[in-house]
Amino acid sequence: MSLTHLNARGEAHMVDVGDKPVSQREAVASGRIYMQAATLARLEAGGMPKGDVLATARIAGIQAAKRTHELIPLCHALALTKVSIDFHLDAAAGCVEVRTLCRLAGRTGVEMEALTATSVACLTLYDMCKAVDKDMVIGDVRLESKRGGKSGDYRRPE
Amino acid sequence: MSLTHLNARGEAHMVDVGDKPVSQREAVASGRIYMQAATLARLEAGGMPKGDVLATARIAGIQAAKRTHELIPLCHALALTKVSIDFHLDAAAGCVEVRTLCRLAGRTGVEMEALTATSVACLTLYDMCKAVDKDMVIGDVRLESKRGGKSGDYRRPE
Amino acid sequence: MSLTHLNARGEAHMVDVGDKPVSQREAVASGRIYMQAATLARLEAGGMPKGDVLATARIAGIQAAKRTHELIPLCHALALTKVSIDFHLDAAAGCVEVRTLCRLAGRTGVEMEALTATSVACLTLYDMCKAVDKDMVIGDVRLESKRGGKSGDYRRPE
Amino acid sequence: MSLTHLNARGEAHMVDVGDKPVSQREAVASGRIYMQAATLARLEAGGMPKGDVLATARIAGIQAAKRTHELIPLCHALALTKVSIDFHLDAAAGCVEVRTLCRLAGRTGVEMEALTATSVACLTLYDMCKAVDKDMVIGDVRLESKRGGKSGDYRRPE
Amino acid sequence: MSLTHLNARGEAHMVDVGDKPVSQREAVASGRIYMQAATLARLEAGGMPKGDVLATARIAGIQAAKRTHELIPLCHALALTKVSIDFHLDAAAGCVEVRTLCRLAGRTGVEMEALTATSVACLTLYDMCKAVDKDMVIGDVRLESKRGGKSGDYRRPE
Amino acid sequence: MSLTHLNARGEAHMVDVGDKPVSQREAVASGRIYMQAATLARLEAGGMPKGDVLATARIAGIQAAKRTHELIPLCHALALTKVSIDFHLDAAAGCVEVRTLCRLAGRTGVEMEALTATSVACLTLYDMCKAVDKDMVIGDVRLESKRGGKSGDYRRPE
Repeated sequence: MSLTHLNARGEAHMVDVGDKPVSQREAVASGRIYMQAATLARLEAGGMPKGDVLATARIAGIQAAKRTHELIPLCHALALTKVSIDFHLDAAAGCVEVRTLCRLAGRTGVEMEALTATSVACLTLYDMCKAVDKDMVIGDVRLESKRGGKSGDYRRPE
Repeated sequence: MSLTHLNARGEAHMVDVGDKPVSQREAVASGRIYMQAATLARLEAGGMPKGDVLATARIAGIQAAKRTHELIPLCHALALTKVSIDFHLDAAAGCVEVRTLCRLAGRTGVEMEALTATSVACLTLYDMCKAVDKDMVIGDVRLESKRGGKSGDYRRPE
Repeated sequence: MSLTHLNARGEAHMVDVGDKPVSQREAVASGRIYMQAATLARLEAGGMPKGDVLATARIAGIQAAKRTHELIPLCHALALTKVSIDFHLDAAAGCVEVRTLCRLAGRTGVEMEALTATSVACLTLYDMCKAVDKDMVIGDVRLESKRGGKSGDYRRPE
Repeated sequence: MSLTHLNARGEAHMVDVGDKPVSQREAVASGRIYMQAATLARLEAGGMPKGDVLATARIAGIQAAKRTHELIPLCHALALTKVSIDFHLDAAAGCVEVRTLCRLAGRTGVEMEALTATSVACLTLYDMCKAVDKDMVIGDVRLESKRGGKSGDYRRPE
Repeated sequence: MSLTHLNARGEAHMVDVGDKPVSQREAVASGRIYMQAATLARLEAGGMPKGDVLATARIAGIQAAKRTHELIPLCHALALTKVSIDFHLDAAAGCVEVRTLCRLAGRTGVEMEALTATSVACLTLYDMCKAVDKDMVIGDVRLESKRGGKSGDYRRPE
Repeated sequence: MSLTHLNARGEAHMVDVGDKPVSQREAVASGRIYMQAATLARLEAGGMPKGDVLATARIAGIQAAKRTHELIPLCHALALTKVSIDFHLDAAAGCVEVRTLCRLAGRTGVEMEALTATSVACLTLYDMCKAVDKDMVIGDVRLESKRGGKSGDYRRPE
C-alpha cells in the first residue's frame, strides 16, 4: 500500500482517485444472519408478519449499494453498472446467506458497495423476522473477491 | 407474537403503529470487526491512510441511525432523542467492538436504529482500514437489550 | 378555504401547522398504469426481465411515502404510522390499479404521501416493464378519500 | 427484447449495463393534471395559498430527475447533463400540461428520469392547489420520445 | 451551560433530549451575499442565465431546512411546523439579504434549521449568478433570535 | 459569458453541459466562523459539550460536497475524485478558517461543491459550539481559485 495518501496530521479526507484509470471493477461480498430453526422454517414458509421477506431485503440491499457514498463518509460517489443479490437458506448452518455482486466501469473498487448492500440486506432480514426472534445475529460479512484496479485481483484465502 | 398484522397474501407493508402508546424506548446493539493484529495496532497508532478512523466511524454510525427508515424499507420514520456509539479495541480478540445506544420517545422500538448504526460504523471501519487489510470480517452484530413498549424488556441471553 | 396563509407577495413558503391539533389522519389514493394486453399477461406470468415486478413496486411506493417531504418542496416532514399498497391486475381495463393507504397521528393530512407512493409505484411498474412496452401510460392518479383534520372528511364524488 | 438479462428465478436485480457504449441519450416525457376551471384560473392569476406554483413545481421536478435512482429501485445512478421542464396551461382541456426533457452522455436511457420529473412536478402542482380543489387527477404520464442507445429511437405513435 | 452532556472522553454524540419538554420553538436567522452592483441589478431585472433566481433559492432553502439533521451530524431529526424565507435586495450595501423563520413544537431548538436554510439559499444565489460574477462573498450568517426551550429567549445584541 | 443558455422566459432549468469536454477540474473555497476568544480557546482545548468538533465538521463538509446536487437545485450530479478540508484556528482574527479543495474529472466546475462543503463545515462548527456561544457569525465564504474548463482559470483578486 502506498502511504502517499496519508495526510500528515492524520485527518480524514477523500483520497484523490483522479489519476487512476477507468477500468472494469467487480466485487463479491457475503454475509450471514443466524436464526433459530423455527424462524428459518417460518421465513421459508412465507409466514412472517411484515410479509415478503426475501424480496424486500433484496430491494433494500440494491438500493443501499447505490447510496454507499452517502453512508460511508470517505467513499466516492460512483455509478454502478450492475448489482445483484442472492439468498441461500441454509438449514444446516441455521442461517440465511447473502451474496452480493457489484460491477462498475470506474476509478475505484466497489467492495464497499458490495459489503454495504450485504449488510443492509441482512439488517432488513432482521427487521422482517424480529417479531418472532430477537436473538438473531449478523455475521461473516466479508469480501469474497474483487477484480480490476491497480492493486490487482483479490480472492479470500480459504 | 400477534399475527394480526399478517397481511393475508404475505405482501410487504408498514404495519400500523398508530394505536401504540408513546413511551420511552431504548435499545443497545453491538457488533465487531475482526482484523489482523498488525491492522489493529496501526489503527490504534493513528496511521491509517484515510485518517481519523474512530471519529469518522462514529459520525457515520450516528448519521446512519437517523436514516434507518430510508434504508430498511418497512421501518417507520422516527425522531431519536439520543444516539451514542462507543468503540473498544480488543487486542486479545483481534477486533474492534462497536456498541450503540439509541433512545426515543415514540411508538416503535429502536432496535433497527441501533443495529443499523452499528453496522454502518463497522463498514466505515472496514473502509478506513481496507488499504492495509482486505481480510477483515464484520460479525456478532446483535441486539444486546431493549426497554419500553408493549412486548416488554429484552436482554440477550448469556 | 382560509386565505390567511396567503403570503402577500405570492412567494412559496411552508405554511404554519403549529396551531393545528394532533389527530388521527388517513388518506387513500389510487392510480393506474395502462399497458398492452400482452404486457399485462407477461407481468402476471412473472416473465419480466428485471424480475419480481409487484414486490419491487410495492417497496418503492412505501419508501417514497416516507420521503414525500423531500420530493414535494412545501410538504411537512411527518412520521407515518402505516403504509400499505395493493395492486389489482385488471385485464378488462388493460391496466394495473395501484391503491395506497397512509395513516398518521399528526397535524397535517397525508394525501400527498398516498399520492406520491402511488405515483412512484406506477413509475416502478413502468421501469420493470418498459423493455417490452414503451407505450404504457400512467393515469387516474387521484385522492379517493381522506379522514381527520379540521377541513373534514373527503370522499371522491362518484 | 433480449431475454438474456432474465434472472432464471425471476428475482429483482439491476441489469448489467457495463458493456453498453456511452452515447448521447435524450428522452421527453409529458403528463397532465386535470382541475376545475376555477382552480386553473386561480393558478394562472397567482392566487394559490402556498404561493408561486409553477416555479416550485419546476424545481421539484428537476430535483426529482436527479434522484430517480433513489426512488426507482432498479434504475442506475447517472449524471444528467440537462433537465428542463415546461408547463402549458390548457384552459380548453382543463389541465396543466407538463413536459420534461432529459439528456445524458451515458450507458442507459433516461426515460425514467423524464417520467419521474414529470410525475413529481404534477404531484407538486397538486400540493400547491389542493387547498382549493381536492378532485384534481394526474393523468397521461407517458414517454413522448427517446433518442440514443442500442434499441434505437422511439416516438410515441399518434 | 450545563456540562453534564460532556462525554468524558470528548467523543462526538447526539445529546439526550428525551427529558426536555415539548414546547413551541422559533428561530430567525439571516445572512447576506455580497455581489457587484451590476450583478445585483441584473438579478433584479431577471436576466440571469439559469433563470428565476429568488424562487429557486427560496425552495432550496426550505428543502434544506427539512434536511438539516442529515447535513449536521449531531442535529436531531425534527418535524418543522413552518419555514419561510424572505429576500431583500439592498443596492446600498451591495447584497441580497436572506432571512429565514423556522417553527417547531418539539424538544430542541431550531436555530440550526434556520441557519442551514439561510446558508443553502445563499449558496443557491451564488450558483444562479456565478456565470456573471465569481467574486461574490457569503457573509453575516447568524442567529437573529430564538424563542422557547429551557435556555430562554435570545435576541442578538445590537 | 454566453447568453445562449438563457431560457427566453427566464425559467429555471439545468443547463446543458453535454457538449462540454471532460477535463480535470479543481476548486478551492474558504470561509470563516467568528466567535468569542473564550469559545475559540475552549474549542482548541477540546472541551465542547458535543465532543470532537473539528473531526465532526470535517466529515460533515466532505459528505455535503457529495450531496451538493441535492441541495442546490440546478447543480449537476457529479463524481468528485477528491475532497479535503482544512481548519486553521486564528486567535488573532477570532475565528476558525475553513478551506476546502475539490477535484473532478468531468464536464462542470466544482466551485459549488467546494462552497457547499465549506458552508456545512461552518454550520457544524456552529452546532458543536452553540451551547457556549450563540453570537457566532459565519462569513467570508468565497471561491479562492478554480482550474479547468472552458472559462479558464480563476484566482480571487487580492
